[in-house]
Amino acid sequence: MTLILSNNDVEQLLTMQECIAALEEAYVELADGRGVSRTRSDSLTPTTRQDAHYSLKSMDGIVPSFGVSAVRINSDIITMPKIGNNVRRVKVPAAPNARYVGLVLLFSTQNGEPLAIMPDGVMQRIRVGATNGLGVKYLARKNAKSIGILGSGWQAGTQLMAACAVRDIKTIRCFSPNRERREAFAKEMSGVLNIEVVPVDQPETALAGADIAMCATNSEDAIFFAHWIEPGMHLSSIKKPEIEMKAVKRADRVIIHTRDTKPITELSTDLPESAAIAEEKRVPQPDDVDIKKFPTIAELIAGKAKGRAKDEEVTCFLNNLGLGYQFAAAGSVVYRKAKERGIGHELPTDWFTEDVHP
Amino acid sequence: MTLILSNNDVEQLLTMQECIAALEEAYVELADGRGVSRTRSDSLTPTTRQDAHYSLKSMDGIVPSFGVSAVRINSDIITMPKIGNNVRRVKVPAAPNARYVGLVLLFSTQNGEPLAIMPDGVMQRIRVGATNGLGVKYLARKNAKSIGILGSGWQAGTQLMAACAVRDIKTIRCFSPNRERREAFAKEMSGVLNIEVVPVDQPETALAGADIAMCATNSEDAIFFAHWIEPGMHLSSIKKPEIEMKAVKRADRVIIHTRDTKPITELSTDLPESAAIAEEKRVPQPDDVDIKKFPTIAELIAGKAKGRAKDEEVTCFLNNLGLGYQFAAAGSVVYRKAKERGIGHELPTDWFTEDVHP
Repeated sequence: MTLILSNNDVEQLLTMQECIAALEEAYVELADGRGVSRTRSDSLTPTTRQDAHYSLKSMDGIVPSFGVSAVRINSDIITMPKIGNNVRRVKVPAAPNARYVGLVLLFSTQNGEPLAIMPDGVMQRIRVGATNGLGVKYLARKNAKSIGILGSGWQAGTQLMAACAVRDIKTIRCFSPNRERREAFAKEMSGVLNIEVVPVDQPETALAGADIAMCATNSEDAIFFAHWIEPGMHLSSIKKPEIEMKAVKRADRVIIHTRDTKPITELSTDLPESAAIAEEKRVPQPDDVDIKKFPTIAELIAGKAKGRAKDEEVTCFLNNLGLGYQFAAAGSVVYRKAKERGIGHELPTDWFTEDVHP
Repeated sequence: MTLILSNNDVEQLLTMQECIAALEEAYVELADGRGVSRTRSDSLTPTTRQDAHYSLKSMDGIVPSFGVSAVRINSDIITMPKIGNNVRRVKVPAAPNARYVGLVLLFSTQNGEPLAIMPDGVMQRIRVGATNGLGVKYLARKNAKSIGILGSGWQAGTQLMAACAVRDIKTIRCFSPNRERREAFAKEMSGVLNIEVVPVDQPETALAGADIAMCATNSEDAIFFAHWIEPGMHLSSIKKPEIEMKAVKRADRVIIHTRDTKPITELSTDLPESAAIAEEKRVPQPDDVDIKKFPTIAELIAGKAKGRAKDEEVTCFLNNLGLGYQFAAAGSVVYRKAKERGIGHELPTDWFTEDVHP
């Protein structure tokens, strides 16, 4: 039977601890070259709305020791509203019942069969958290106990959960520009983590004296600056632009997620101007550091790259681009537990296989 | 509702004529740059069997004017048996009930929603036929009436159907090495086409005097040779290696399917030797013609490249690599007709969408 799972199922089945453990093991196999990951691709065309464009994103990965491969697909309607002086990239929940479209398909590497199909939303958030959690585990000081976090959105919660899963965190301060939002976030996360999260009204207040500085925003511009660095700090970002390049250069050790520094991109010649501008913004600036020269988190975990050498060092983890590989690793945990517990809609596997030679 | 369709459904819904018409329209949009196609990717790792490897293949395409995008996925267990002096690539139907795994997922470019999921087997065969049919339509002599075909397998039938859909064919001769197979094929196709297909025991007999020479094999080595060319002939292949490069060079007009001349390839370091050898074989030989210099079928159809100028010219179409784009075009026909006729299993679209921001 092929399982159809929901975001609720994934939330119930995939703990942060398990996701970190699965990724940690899978990354060693990736660093060894035994596991493989196909760079994300973004294909953009017009849609029916004049102020939006259509985006089809896909990424593949295979973790042989888990016996699982994954294809993650996003089928998005995207607008680029101007908010103040900034253009923001906003996904529109345009599918029936005002919903988004993101799927993870899992296959068996043993016999090829489709094991499960599920939405990507909850899993994608947990795997981003887990990956930055591994950054904290392998780079932050062993005795790190305070976090300053910039951002209070969808990704910020899992960032804190992941850091708290790998270090004995005692204090967390959170800054984001919207007071109501950061206060609600602080309240919610204090409950989830059982650690007081203190909302503050300046980024400097959040970061002063923090052992771990976490960026968890959707910003295309820098939000963390070099002059905020303190000796021994670990810097963590979920998107390369968040940390000012000057700060990256000042760090003693920089680790990236992947050398897939940009997606394979296919652009229609008929895109609205907004989409074209957004694409241009993603092209690395000429004065950029070539981040490909830094080791990856997989190499660090596999012992092929050096981590922190001294307490005073400044370390930095740039979670620069997502990998289909993460979905194969996290998906294998979800699938195994769903089978054990009898969770999900079972559909005949024959619906997704064929007797015809493809 | 999201439709789950079967190969039987696709066979019933997608006629060769309709597939040719859909591709013809879609290719114009591709040549214009309005439609986009993401190069096929092949990711290879070990599987549990020592004599086989696992292959995850994916390709994406979007046809904006049809409002449809597609992702085609193949999850295969592949062996490389030595047959005589040749290594052959054989997919093993290893999924439950001895089945293969190939899927096409269709999405709406209007609202992103998943429209349908279906196996790829029947569609893939029809779209290969339809594409070579367009080669015949735009390159063969208007009065072409005879076909010599090399091959009697799964792809050969749709090649003949496609050629007969675009030219008034009177005679067909078929050669393949296995006598029983070619006789059974000839008998079957005579019935399907209502044109006598004559099985012959030498390739030269099939090709002598033929207006259209069709190659429809799975061969990694040349099966059509330059000295078989006759003035005015149209050469057609479903795989680049089939036609000897000397023959390609001798043709007056050569058209390729796509400038995506090879897939994006991700290879595990732990592949069995057989898989590594197979991959090596796919790397173009150094004395090869650079086929990227030839125009594409999309450019030909869109009037951006020249077709046949004179009856005596020799034309050649190399269907060198498949495109996800073809599945979006053919899939949109299947989906529209399935909806009209109420065919397929309907599943709640909410199972494949989410309220969570991905």
